[in-house]
Amino acid sequence: MIIVLKPDAPVEAAAEVIDLLDTAEVESHLVVDQGREVVIAPGAPSELVAMVAGHGSVERVVKTGGPAMLVSSAYSPMRTVIDVSGVSVGGDTFVVIAGPCAVEGRDQILEVAHAVKRHGARMLRGDAFKPRTSPYSFQGLGESALKLLADAREETGLPFVAEVLDTRDVELVAGYADMIRVGTRNMSNYPLLRELGRQPKPVLLKRGRTATLDEWLSAAEYVYGSGNPNVVLVERGIRTFEPSTRNTLDISAIPSVKRKTHLPVLVDPSHAAGDSGLVPALARAALAAGADGLIVDVHPDPSTALVDGDQALEPSQFGDLMSQLRSIAAALGLSL
Amino acid sequence: MIIVLKPDAPVEAAAEVIDLLDTAEVESHLVVDQGREVVIAPGAPSELVAMVAGHGSVERVVKTGGPAMLVSSAYSPMRTVIDVSGVSVGGDTFVVIAGPCAVEGRDQILEVAHAVKRHGARMLRGDAFKPRTSPYSFQGLGESALKLLADAREETGLPFVAEVLDTRDVELVAGYADMIRVGTRNMSNYPLLRELGRQPKPVLLKRGRTATLDEWLSAAEYVYGSGNPNVVLVERGIRTFEPSTRNTLDISAIPSVKRKTHLPVLVDPSHAAGDSGLVPALARAALAAGADGLIVDVHPDPSTALVDGDQALEPSQFGDLMSQLRSIAAALGLSL
Amino acid sequence: MIIVLKPDAPVEAAAEVIDLLDTAEVESHLVVDQGREVVIAPGAPSELVAMVAGHGSVERVVKTGGPAMLVSSAYSPMRTVIDVSGVSVGGDTFVVIAGPCAVEGRDQILEVAHAVKRHGARMLRGDAFKPRTSPYSFQGLGESALKLLADAREETGLPFVAEVLDTRDVELVAGYADMIRVGTRNMSNYPLLRELGRQPKPVLLKRGRTATLDEWLSAAEYVYGSGNPNVVLVERGIRTFEPSTRNTLDISAIPSVKRKTHLPVLVDPSHAAGDSGLVPALARAALAAGADGLIVDVHPDPSTALVDGDQALEPSQFGDLMSQLRSIAAALGLSL
Amino acid sequence: MIIVLKPDAPVEAAAEVIDLLDTAEVESHLVVDQGREVVIAPGAPSELVAMVAGHGSVERVVKTGGPAMLVSSAYSPMRTVIDVSGVSVGGDTFVVIAGPCAVEGRDQILEVAHAVKRHGARMLRGDAFKPRTSPYSFQGLGESALKLLADAREETGLPFVAEVLDTRDVELVAGYADMIRVGTRNMSNYPLLRELGRQPKPVLLKRGRTATLDEWLSAAEYVYGSGNPNVVLVERGIRTFEPSTRNTLDISAIPSVKRKTHLPVLVDPSHAAGDSGLVPALARAALAAGADGLIVDVHPDPSTALVDGDQALEPSQFGDLMSQLRSIAAALGLSL
Repeated sequence: MIIVLKPDAPVEAAAEVIDLLDTAEVESHLVVDQGREVVIAPGAPSELVAMVAGHGSVERVVKTGGPAMLVSSAYSPMRTVIDVSGVSVGGDTFVVIAGPCAVEGRDQILEVAHAVKRHGARMLRGDAFKPRTSPYSFQGLGESALKLLADAREETGLPFVAEVLDTRDVELVAGYADMIRVGTRNMSNYPLLRELGRQPKPVLLKRGRTATLDEWLSAAEYVYGSGNPNVVLVERGIRTFEPSTRNTLDISAIPSVKRKTHLPVLVDPSHAAGDSGLVPALARAALAAGADGLIVDVHPDPSTALVDGDQALEPSQFGDLMSQLRSIAAALGLSL
Repeated sequence: MIIVLKPDAPVEAAAEVIDLLDTAEVESHLVVDQGREVVIAPGAPSELVAMVAGHGSVERVVKTGGPAMLVSSAYSPMRTVIDVSGVSVGGDTFVVIAGPCAVEGRDQILEVAHAVKRHGARMLRGDAFKPRTSPYSFQGLGESALKLLADAREETGLPFVAEVLDTRDVELVAGYADMIRVGTRNMSNYPLLRELGRQPKPVLLKRGRTATLDEWLSAAEYVYGSGNPNVVLVERGIRTFEPSTRNTLDISAIPSVKRKTHLPVLVDPSHAAGDSGLVPALARAALAAGADGLIVDVHPDPSTALVDGDQALEPSQFGDLMSQLRSIAAALGLSL
Repeated sequence: MIIVLKPDAPVEAAAEVIDLLDTAEVESHLVVDQGREVVIAPGAPSELVAMVAGHGSVERVVKTGGPAMLVSSAYSPMRTVIDVSGVSVGGDTFVVIAGPCAVEGRDQILEVAHAVKRHGARMLRGDAFKPRTSPYSFQGLGESALKLLADAREETGLPFVAEVLDTRDVELVAGYADMIRVGTRNMSNYPLLRELGRQPKPVLLKRGRTATLDEWLSAAEYVYGSGNPNVVLVERGIRTFEPSTRNTLDISAIPSVKRKTHLPVLVDPSHAAGDSGLVPALARAALAAGADGLIVDVHPDPSTALVDGDQALEPSQFGDLMSQLRSIAAALGLSL
Repeated sequence: MIIVLKPDAPVEAAAEVIDLLDTAEVESHLVVDQGREVVIAPGAPSELVAMVAGHGSVERVVKTGGPAMLVSSAYSPMRTVIDVSGVSVGGDTFVVIAGPCAVEGRDQILEVAHAVKRHGARMLRGDAFKPRTSPYSFQGLGESALKLLADAREETGLPFVAEVLDTRDVELVAGYADMIRVGTRNMSNYPLLRELGRQPKPVLLKRGRTATLDEWLSAAEYVYGSGNPNVVLVERGIRTFEPSTRNTLDISAIPSVKRKTHLPVLVDPSHAAGDSGLVPALARAALAAGADGLIVDVHPDPSTALVDGDQALEPSQFGDLMSQLRSIAAALGLSL
């Protein structure tokens, strides 16, 4: 059960509602959604609805069926549109975010930024901190990469998204980036999610490699329930037995998770496939299946990339893909 | 290594080539592809190419890189188009096969056949023999269902595909159906595959629930190498940890398997999703990802279906889906 | 609901019970378990118990909780012991079946049979028909292999188990073997399972590579419900993402499936691991986890084996393993 | 390639070796293993061995075959024994760690501590910080739980292990616990692993729910290569399609990972099964398969546990399990 208080509820109202639930031996949690106090009572039986709804400061009581979460469609049936420095994610425009997996130097990031902008990307991706399987692989350039991304933003006007790995770096990354990414390895890093919920930059939350849809949404709830409603989900492939791709893109997750949540959902075809030759087909499929956008690896010279070169498109391949997407988007009544 | 003999090779030529390989201690197999003798030598080292190619009756020697199979792209780089009673599968038309999971009676199958024809389906599906997890579930109507399907074909002009489960029923099913389906549970039923290779009706081969792409192609090779080159593959979802769908549609399998083989590839969004609400999104994604067509469950009244009602579209929902597919197909330069 | 009729029930009793259920719109199936008529009514609500139990020819009515199956623990709470030509499977002796994956010739099979007998194996394994991923791999020696196995049995006194792949070969294999194996690829080959249910030889039913426990038990019910109660289950590893073993032995399946069924459960550590170096650890774990026995690959010279040599133990390694198992069995109060 | 310098190598030696590799365009990393300087050069070709070995300060050069890591068996062929406040993990004693999933209060933890001690546990488990799927579930008592664990240690003499979730809490947890656990969700939280590598308390590293063995060892290398060689691995089940257990215990991982690494390996049967009725069978299997010990959930009253009560043993069940393990350990020549 989710209990939304009236905007003008007096300060003591939340405590009163929580006491009511307490009396009925139901545990509850006070959260704030965009200035509005909300009480979450996951285990409340539906018989309590009338009683709680009777409190004068209660605006509405949501019976969720599934888990009681602010990210659920039950709580907010309208689809959410999130503003990232002027770019709308989740509306009628299919948003393409593109750029290199890792920032490797000034020339690289500027070249890619200009190229993806020219071909129609709305945002830039590029990382300063890379979570690598081996401690002896390239781990990212750190703050200097964030500065280069800021320079690329200044030159191209493209907002950028960058990954954060450590609670201690949230403030640093948030100081530069327009949007902060949580990678698949950190989807269940709850202290990191809470910290991201306490700062204002939008969050791009990748699905964990073996997270179910419900676990993914619970991770989003960690951010949202900590105070930051600007969460965008990214399906990036799950781990299966099939060896021909790096991961198995769970295309059904797009329509499936959109039933469960009001948050926008993007697809990362690059990390799913691990193979640039498969990226265009997956990108087209994502659009056709109803995703709100893509995050795609593009590198000026994939063969020399320090990270994940196999999956990066060259700028011209990215241009071809964007043309294909434009035709399909038009057929679906969307812009790109 | 695959060695293709000249059309006019004398009868003793194949034996001579096999002897040559034998001398080099390489095992080989003689198969016939559309009248042409072909020797398959899976383990032949590339040093033998020149020697074998030197034989006067050898037209060409194919080095396959991967497994030496007639279904591989290396053997036949051009995409194969398969004729099913006048319907071309694998060409510029995205072929939609539709109908009920199981034939339940005359009215049901005729009603669906007319409906799917009206909305643009090119073939009818419907089963007489159902492989059910429980021995106490409805197992299909048997031969009488095949007769009803033949009646529906006569009324609508739609060729039909039906499943076979037992080597002893191949002749029976082939006597009625235009195309014979091998279900996911039988993908590795090799005696059945061989038997289907020895009869002329085209075969629709579903991917096993946990088959890798290479295992799936090897299953196709059982049919092809036994004499029947008319094999169409169907991706229908693989088994993963994710519980929100019945199976996980492996959308990457479309571009991935099309690199490996010249055979057409369809998608079954119904059995993948197990949920009719997800079928349209998966069907659109399949088209956008490059599939050659679909096989979709349609039932006049899904709530009363004896098998898999949850995943069947109603005829009007199927009509809506076909409209969506028509727009996307046009954007991709295909007809429907 | 499972309704067991009295031994002396008149011939019309079953039809009367089925009529009773029919009147309540509950579908039911008549099966015969070791001479006793039993009516299976999977969807019967528990309110009907009293009514059905009131029929004079009904001995007892079993409410199953889970699926209504003869293989379920609810139907038969006592653990079943199955006799295979004098060897008891499922009792206080941990039964080890050993031998080569495929019969390759007289010397090979006789040498292995004597060796495994000497080290304490109770039964011999060896196949005449091999289901191979590629049609161009060795497919088994067919009937001549069955004759060699019969010779080995005559020399050593060990009963043998062999695989059948085709409904048309059941009679042939049953004519030689003491027990018939259904391989992982055929676990859902229902016509084959039914055919095995109609002949008297005990059946060794391997778990499908991605079968859930409930699907595996339903497959066993196909055999049992068709008239053959002598079914032994074999856990042989499931398909997962982990590449370091051929399959992932699901050790939890042993205690888990033994809660659900009264049938004996063996483990095949060889096909699970695909690596002979891991076989002893898995074999010991199987014994400790409560399995009723093992089926293990042993080959006189694994490096030359035509099938699966990587996973076969040499006879001396098998001897060492048997010593280890003997100690653990003693600690657990079992004999070997 | 791993290059171990002599104990008395001059300060400039490491830089010289790195320069040599640099000249050959091979990247390398300097780490310190128990006071000894070691240079890791993952991509070094074996032709360089002689050159590098020729440097006067090089003691030995290890060609690793697989990844160049300090945790690999190639680097240290002898099995490592790790001391945790007097308890040896990895030697001839099978070490059982037991206790509640979460610390819930003084009475609970003291009662369990005394009970598991009485039955033969060598260490206590209990958490202060719990990573919960939902932000609205009990998240642990924090520092006060650590104090209670310290009290339980004082009363019983059992060292304890507790989980850490946040890089910012490492110092806090290390201030109380004898050993620090990294949970399955954090196996790829590299900043956390590095931080644990920079403090001296032994680390218990659980396998990620979908980590391959190689990814797990790379995670261990993050700790070891950062300066802390005291790492113990815990297999705790992987995520598969099988729904009857919470996870699928990968019993093959025990012998398999012990081939690859010299570190000790424990098993967590409780989190693998998610069901206390299966725990004894899995625990016995772990011992028989060669694990170095267990970490088991024990709760004085599982039905009231705040976290994971379904999988916790009651103290008397734990006692029974310990008796069984004692018999098997004796049969295997181990003590408990």
